[in-house]
Amino acid sequence: MHLDALFSPKNVAVIGASRTPGKIGHTILKNMIEAGYAGELFPVNPNAESVLGLAAVKSVDDLPTPLDLAVLAVPRDQVPASLKALAKHHLRCAVVVSAGYRESGREGLKVEGEVARICRDHDIALIGPNCLGVLSTTDGINASFAPGFPRRGNIAFFSQSGALCAAILDWAIGESIGISKFVSLGNKAVVDETHMLYALSQDPETKVVLGYVENVEHGEAFLRMARKISRDKPVIMLKGGSTPAGAKAASAHTGSITGSDPAYEAAFRQTGILRAHTVSEMFDLAQAFSCQPLPQGPRLAVVTNAGGPAILAADAVGRSLLSMAALTPQTVDTLKADLPAAASVYNPVDMMASADPERLERTLSVVLDDPMADSVLVLVAPTAFTDPRAMAQAVVRAATGSHKPVLCCFMGKALMEDGARLLKESGFPCYPFPEQAVTCLEAMYRHGVRRSRPSPVMASVEGRKDLVRKAIKEARALGMTDIPTEGAQAVLKAYDLPVARARLARTSDEALAAAAKLGYPVVCKVASPQIAHKADAGAVALNVRTPEELKAAFLEITGHVKVLRPDAHVSGCIIQEQAPAGMKEVVMGFKRDDNFGPLLHFGLAGVYVDVLGDVSHRLAPISMGDARQLVREIDAYMLLTGVRGEPPANIEALEDLAIRLSQLALDFPEIYEADLSPVLVNNERAVIADARLMLLPR
Amino acid sequence: MHLDALFSPKNVAVIGASRTPGKIGHTILKNMIEAGYAGELFPVNPNAESVLGLAAVKSVDDLPTPLDLAVLAVPRDQVPASLKALAKHHLRCAVVVSAGYRESGREGLKVEGEVARICRDHDIALIGPNCLGVLSTTDGINASFAPGFPRRGNIAFFSQSGALCAAILDWAIGESIGISKFVSLGNKAVVDETHMLYALSQDPETKVVLGYVENVEHGEAFLRMARKISRDKPVIMLKGGSTPAGAKAASAHTGSITGSDPAYEAAFRQTGILRAHTVSEMFDLAQAFSCQPLPQGPRLAVVTNAGGPAILAADAVGRSLLSMAALTPQTVDTLKADLPAAASVYNPVDMMASADPERLERTLSVVLDDPMADSVLVLVAPTAFTDPRAMAQAVVRAATGSHKPVLCCFMGKALMEDGARLLKESGFPCYPFPEQAVTCLEAMYRHGVRRSRPSPVMASVEGRKDLVRKAIKEARALGMTDIPTEGAQAVLKAYDLPVARARLARTSDEALAAAAKLGYPVVCKVASPQIAHKADAGAVALNVRTPEELKAAFLEITGHVKVLRPDAHVSGCIIQEQAPAGMKEVVMGFKRDDNFGPLLHFGLAGVYVDVLGDVSHRLAPISMGDARQLVREIDAYMLLTGVRGEPPANIEALEDLAIRLSQLALDFPEIYEADLSPVLVNNERAVIADARLMLLPR
Repeated sequence: MHLDALFSPKNVAVIGASRTPGKIGHTILKNMIEAGYAGELFPVNPNAESVLGLAAVKSVDDLPTPLDLAVLAVPRDQVPASLKALAKHHLRCAVVVSAGYRESGREGLKVEGEVARICRDHDIALIGPNCLGVLSTTDGINASFAPGFPRRGNIAFFSQSGALCAAILDWAIGESIGISKFVSLGNKAVVDETHMLYALSQDPETKVVLGYVENVEHGEAFLRMARKISRDKPVIMLKGGSTPAGAKAASAHTGSITGSDPAYEAAFRQTGILRAHTVSEMFDLAQAFSCQPLPQGPRLAVVTNAGGPAILAADAVGRSLLSMAALTPQTVDTLKADLPAAASVYNPVDMMASADPERLERTLSVVLDDPMADSVLVLVAPTAFTDPRAMAQAVVRAATGSHKPVLCCFMGKALMEDGARLLKESGFPCYPFPEQAVTCLEAMYRHGVRRSRPSPVMASVEGRKDLVRKAIKEARALGMTDIPTEGAQAVLKAYDLPVARARLARTSDEALAAAAKLGYPVVCKVASPQIAHKADAGAVALNVRTPEELKAAFLEITGHVKVLRPDAHVSGCIIQEQAPAGMKEVVMGFKRDDNFGPLLHFGLAGVYVDVLGDVSHRLAPISMGDARQLVREIDAYMLLTGVRGEPPANIEALEDLAIRLSQLALDFPEIYEADLSPVLVNNERAVIADARLMLLPR
Repeated sequence: MHLDALFSPKNVAVIGASRTPGKIGHTILKNMIEAGYAGELFPVNPNAESVLGLAAVKSVDDLPTPLDLAVLAVPRDQVPASLKALAKHHLRCAVVVSAGYRESGREGLKVEGEVARICRDHDIALIGPNCLGVLSTTDGINASFAPGFPRRGNIAFFSQSGALCAAILDWAIGESIGISKFVSLGNKAVVDETHMLYALSQDPETKVVLGYVENVEHGEAFLRMARKISRDKPVIMLKGGSTPAGAKAASAHTGSITGSDPAYEAAFRQTGILRAHTVSEMFDLAQAFSCQPLPQGPRLAVVTNAGGPAILAADAVGRSLLSMAALTPQTVDTLKADLPAAASVYNPVDMMASADPERLERTLSVVLDDPMADSVLVLVAPTAFTDPRAMAQAVVRAATGSHKPVLCCFMGKALMEDGARLLKESGFPCYPFPEQAVTCLEAMYRHGVRRSRPSPVMASVEGRKDLVRKAIKEARALGMTDIPTEGAQAVLKAYDLPVARARLARTSDEALAAAAKLGYPVVCKVASPQIAHKADAGAVALNVRTPEELKAAFLEITGHVKVLRPDAHVSGCIIQEQAPAGMKEVVMGFKRDDNFGPLLHFGLAGVYVDVLGDVSHRLAPISMGDARQLVREIDAYMLLTGVRGEPPANIEALEDLAIRLSQLALDFPEIYEADLSPVLVNNERAVIADARLMLLPR
């Protein structure tokens, strides 16, 4: 992908450049000229001598070769022919802004396919179609019809939605936020978010990457790339269509299938992408990450002229992972000597409403020097004594060059906006409300912790694939999509997944023989692929202690099932070792997500999962850390650590289970879903008491 | 309280009015003059002929009688004398801005007490001390040293923090938000939030009340007043010090004890106060409530030129109580005929980026007329075709006079701010991000539902107070703060609280006799006020079936306790009826909150309460609705309704329990804490298996 040619083209052609103001082909050329592009710029227009003062090129055929970037502002149906003609000039990048492709129905989908094929055949990096265009402030590129051009900076943004691009751009301009690259991805017929992540990871002008997606095109590639870039640059993403209502709107808007939200949540967490939940949160985070260093720890100091708002800041800290710094006695003494008697010299440091810029500068310097503070929030409310601009200058003087992050909250608007603007333009994020600043510092802290960890240790195991293949083949031969119990046991054993010992008994005599080998007590449960919830169907007998009990249980279960489920194929009963009393029941499994592949789940069996919805998720492949977190992330985790004098469950055994299951899911795409339910665990071991493995229908 | 004199004084004196710019006494007088106050205004200054063009009054003694409002801009130590002198002139309201009172230590607290006493003695409504002052846009009052004066409107704000006042005021000015009254309450030595709620409930200019508190002075009065006003006007409150970190900062700042957050949460819920969690949320809500009608239902329609942002709006709806409206076939047909073919005519209605003001006006009119939509969000992103101001005018034309709420989101800043301002000034709330608008509509919907409900039916019962008094007296006589088991049983029975039948047995023979009366099986547990968690102490035997078992249990328990807890006073064992198997265990109780009195709690016993923290709260007195919600609000409620084929628990029995317990708490302030744990419940009844009642130490 020639995405360097997108951001730093040596020459640019605008196909369909128009002399008529208001036409898209006019706006794009005008935007390119006004952005100060220094390379060769060719308006292509068959009917004009010149457009906007530039000599017009009559036809695509007259363009030079090679050509780095072409912006196509022609109607949809001219796009394929234009691209073919451009290909002859070794075009490297194309931006197609016209609409009417897959978002508008079958015919549009066909044209989009053709456009994508032409681009792929000729190695053209296509942005769009159905997009707003591309901006690069570093190279004077505004190949878009967006109104306005932001100031140069280090935040890059890509978006599946053009309208969101336009809004964010206008917001950035209004808030004096510096932008490096801005890309409207549109229908992502060729270039998608994964290519963008790669291109932006390589861009030295970009420090922070923002992205809006409704769906991800190639989940596994995305995960690999996201994991890589987010160790180096913070990536902040907003996902549209994360609720059923939003997904419905997305499908009506662009026809995109937005996928399951737990899969996206897992994808973002596992790769270190920071997920924003609202547009404003994305924006707030971008400002903080773009210009301030990451905090080295969670301890925040607040320097303020406003007692009440400082309480609200402390409340926000109380709801976060951060903590209020306890300042050193030296700092306290220095502040005491300098501040008025009524000031508070502990954290929050309240300089009083009478604080002038000099007092703020001195106080901030002292607090920044305190080794007990990892970050500082400067919180200023308007007072009769405050010149907000001078206060902002005091912050810049005291904090420039500090290796600790300094975020500001200048509360208010009419009086405070000037000071806030000065801060932003000087590299200090400034928010109108204190809670926003604390949220940002928390995200920076989390990101710093993640970055400081060694790279994840990926977990993998070697399974006996031949045995799994055999079980799958046998199930297929029987025309089954559920692998029968014995087969499922074989599959699990092939990956050393700890299955309760069990044997199939076709007759009550075989049951007695099986139990004799296993040793009493045993479990007796029906062997039938059609009966999924065996206990609910009355087809399980637990703690069978004697041959007599077993015989009775076998006959009762098989008879009972014959009456209740005459449709079910019953091959007998499974006789299984009885687990010791007092084991906790958990569930683990996976299901394939359309975007991202196998999504593992874990939870405590019964009401915790079924009623309280307390389930954690990770996408395969998993790292050792993912396995740890999969098990520890549920709300009820504490119940596994031993409360009220119970012995703790063997957590390592559950982690091991997750790793093996992840590998099985990766090795056998034809296993669509796995449900180990329940898995019994005590402080010695975990054992899978029942399992269902479902195959993809062929 | 003469708070009418505060907002609409016939005459005003500024004590300490100064000729020196920058002095507070100068700023306040200047503010009063510039606000356009039409009544008599007296600067009091012993050393000047005139101040700011007004003839100065030499001394308080020269002021007229009666005097409605005096603003004291003199140092703290002159305040008591000034107030005494002012009292002779029948002063009705005083605003004291000086600091140095309770917030600064013991000496300040003493002065504050003196100031409050003088005001109470002379029936002077005192605002402050240590406050920013008071504004009333309706009467041209700016008796404050706040910078700036907002435009006239219907939002009132009171705040314990002066800095927050200043910030909110500056924000309101910058955002063109109209204000009616603005009060900085300061230390609340006399006038507190409850007086303010009353005054604002009476103010015809105020439609929405905002308040910031760190603590509430008189909890019960506050609850009564809040319940009353919030049926009439929305009250939106922000609570500072709601986390331990915030509470610590509050205590350092003003010395206020911020109380327990569950108590405030319950107070706000029970009285219908809308709790804002951040300053920006408070502000967003205020705008929406101030100028738009409440929605009659949850169904929201989105009208937009921006597909992607509409997905985010739908996601916000998906996370709320609202739903996306399903438009009628007529609406869909009308839109189809009018909008371009590529537009989406379902909800969200996407008019396409090409939408001009006329298209917006027509579309919005059609959607507003749809009976399936209860509210509309107009969501506009900047495009090359949009004139945001003209788009705003289109909204005003289409939506003015509608009985349905119309909220707007004009996304962006540089281009969109003008349009957003026009909307706000025309009575349409406008937000930069869609999620904010949805949050506001949800709050409006909730508030509407609450308002449309009949007033709460308060629940009360008559208890046998004499029996409770006797039990308390006996416990006191024994020097105990825990009422002993038998006494506790008597107390509960006196309020018809369903206690498991039980008898005290001092000897094993008495135990056998008791069991004979109760009938086997029984529970045998130690009778000792010092042993709270009897089961954990090995001092409970369940399901004792025979006299032999009982005798053994009695001896074992008493022997065991003697060894383990030689300090404990053991009066024998309690022999109690054994509850049927399969009853669910819940806990209920109360504890007195410093601000609000008895705070009831409820949850499922064991891990749900202890580990998952799944507990609901209500303050006594409770209504029938509160009793319903107390039981239903916990996450695990579904477990009581019968999952997986279990019979449901008798919920009414639990509600009845809550009502009786609430009454007991109200009738006997000397019972500090009650812990009914566990309460057993099945589909027949609830029964209290164990209870602890703790008395206030004398």
